[in-house]
Amino acid sequence: MISKKMENMVANSSAIRAMFEEGNRLAKIYGAENVFDFSLGNPNVPAPEAVKKAIIDLLNEEDPVGLHGYTNSNAGYEDVRQAVAESLNGRFGTNFAACNITMTVGAAGGLNVILKALLNPGDEVIVFAPYFGEYRNYVSNYDGVVVEISPDTETFQPKLDEFETKITPKTRAVIVNTPNNPTGVVYPEETIKKMAAIMEKKQREYGTDIYLISDEPYRELAYGGIEVPYLTKYYANTVVGYSYSKSLSLPGERIGYLVIPDEAADSENLISAANVATRILGFVNAPTLQQKVVKACLNEKTDISFYDRNRETLYNGLKELGFECIKPEGAFYLFVKSPVADEKEFCAAAKKYNILLVPGSSFGCPGYVRIAYCVAYETIVNSLPKFKELAAEYK
Amino acid sequence: MISKKMENMVANSSAIRAMFEEGNRLAKIYGAENVFDFSLGNPNVPAPEAVKKAIIDLLNEEDPVGLHGYTNSNAGYEDVRQAVAESLNGRFGTNFAACNITMTVGAAGGLNVILKALLNPGDEVIVFAPYFGEYRNYVSNYDGVVVEISPDTETFQPKLDEFETKITPKTRAVIVNTPNNPTGVVYPEETIKKMAAIMEKKQREYGTDIYLISDEPYRELAYGGIEVPYLTKYYANTVVGYSYSKSLSLPGERIGYLVIPDEAADSENLISAANVATRILGFVNAPTLQQKVVKACLNEKTDISFYDRNRETLYNGLKELGFECIKPEGAFYLFVKSPVADEKEFCAAAKKYNILLVPGSSFGCPGYVRIAYCVAYETIVNSLPKFKELAAEYK
Repeated sequence: MISKKMENMVANSSAIRAMFEEGNRLAKIYGAENVFDFSLGNPNVPAPEAVKKAIIDLLNEEDPVGLHGYTNSNAGYEDVRQAVAESLNGRFGTNFAACNITMTVGAAGGLNVILKALLNPGDEVIVFAPYFGEYRNYVSNYDGVVVEISPDTETFQPKLDEFETKITPKTRAVIVNTPNNPTGVVYPEETIKKMAAIMEKKQREYGTDIYLISDEPYRELAYGGIEVPYLTKYYANTVVGYSYSKSLSLPGERIGYLVIPDEAADSENLISAANVATRILGFVNAPTLQQKVVKACLNEKTDISFYDRNRETLYNGLKELGFECIKPEGAFYLFVKSPVADEKEFCAAAKKYNILLVPGSSFGCPGYVRIAYCVAYETIVNSLPKFKELAAEYK
Repeated sequence: MISKKMENMVANSSAIRAMFEEGNRLAKIYGAENVFDFSLGNPNVPAPEAVKKAIIDLLNEEDPVGLHGYTNSNAGYEDVRQAVAESLNGRFGTNFAACNITMTVGAAGGLNVILKALLNPGDEVIVFAPYFGEYRNYVSNYDGVVVEISPDTETFQPKLDEFETKITPKTRAVIVNTPNNPTGVVYPEETIKKMAAIMEKKQREYGTDIYLISDEPYRELAYGGIEVPYLTKYYANTVVGYSYSKSLSLPGERIGYLVIPDEAADSENLISAANVATRILGFVNAPTLQQKVVKACLNEKTDISFYDRNRETLYNGLKELGFECIKPEGAFYLFVKSPVADEKEFCAAAKKYNILLVPGSSFGCPGYVRIAYCVAYETIVNSLPKFKELAAEYK
């Protein structure tokens, strides 16, 4: 007998994962080149050479007992955290120190850590549809309650009026994700300032601390030189969650960090709580070799040209076929309107052409589908004739 | 404001961690060679050369997108899980397949995964004092209730009579750890059979499933050829949690696995729940490079001669000085009786000589202290004169 909370989870599992495993299955039958698997956000750009070089250098130069042993602090190596802080300060004009950085097991691990540190049962966490469906599970892990702001399907920017009305005295946190999964939008500075003003007003009105959690694994995947604001500069009670999964193509290695600035309310306790949560949730510390790797690779520029070409090719191709979609400015997803109201029907139709998409209802936004374009360029090119056949079904 | 559950945690944090960080502090002041830090179980034996070789081979031979990408299943690479299953079958005559193996972020990650999969709020989990204090936190994460069986300070074997009386209809799991942290004892087959008989009887009496969780990171650290029974062979509802932290000296890399046998009640659902829990707790998958490393190193023999020499030297040395301690048969800990009833007083006295010990109350067994002998041999040798001075305080 599994636990009751898990019964529902197991039954409903993950549509993204299901599609991904379906894609692997189809690839075995039809050959990978004949399957257009746009389901999982698994980066197709290889990790930069600097990662391999860093690992080999570390193996050759460091004492293995130190390299593979538990770190002194659950937050990670002090020199790594110091380097991360300095890198952020240099890039964004912030003022972080090593103590503000907690190395984490990916962004997913970091979100679990910060939510465990913050949430009491019944606390509300606001998310903006469409949003990464796992937020719902992370919040549920700590008996929080997700409050959704409905999607603005014109722009996929946050609906600030609705946001303001849905902040209550129980609102503990707000999660934003920009560049965004699944839409690819970037929130401009203007939007951030307005959000911050609303949250400040509500904090004063209720006498509460409302934490803004900025989940930003796609920060470096921003096209056309668009600026991605650094949110701690706009709102004091901001916690940043980051991961190298997309920027260094290391999703399987599970390495990221949390930033808990001194300016955040109760920051000292929050940092201590994040350390303890890291330990008792079983992470103990972020993987040690990878901590040192990311330090060595802090200045590596993510090559986004690959994703950018895919973005242009797929977006233009789908628009020409009559599909509706805003042009994403970041991340590696297109959020396309389904030609029929029930997008799961559309996903089923697409599967006939070996095109795998994820239904928007997985992201709290039915009527849309997510297309992950972190795939080979050839996959994009070869999929377009199939999309054309699919589109023809709906003329 | 951090969450209420975390407030207590932060205040009381971890005595082991506090000592470890104290040890580092003292080392900076007095020099590492003048500090006898017996606090943290951080293996001093380096990872075998095979680990370094495996990593380099993988970097040179595998496509980085596959090597560092998300795994197909949250449970980990199928070939790794298959290899682990076959290795166990060969060693223990079991009959596991890949589906019975879930790769985890260390044993700590694995315990969190299985407890999330099993526990409803209020479910009881039995532990045998002295026990690894983190079990209390792992159980609390999922709102379980720890039920302690009091220690048998003669043998540190489990008190089976008390065990039988403390199993209730709410008992969901029993955690055993053999070879044991903090005592170093190994439970013999006789004891395992008796425990299994008790649990079978109680399952029938209450109509419940009581899972035996065998936490066994120290399996390979067993001295004098002593046999460490494989518990799935004695009790159907057994789940095994393992980690390579001690056997391959990779504690910082966070790599281990769970075994959920087909014979366990509701095993299919339990395996699914473990997969989902792995994902939603933020692990997503065990670190990919390390998964492949452990597959390559499955047949590496842990060199325990280093720990064994430490064990003999320290045990004999302390006995000669008049300390009371059973001789441990496994792991790398001595559990020594404090000369005064309040062992924290004894720990404070030891600190004057730069000897760092962990109070037994951290393990549910006051009046004792844990000494981790996974340190340099020189540390053991050089500590004995200091222990002699310490002992003199109590003549």
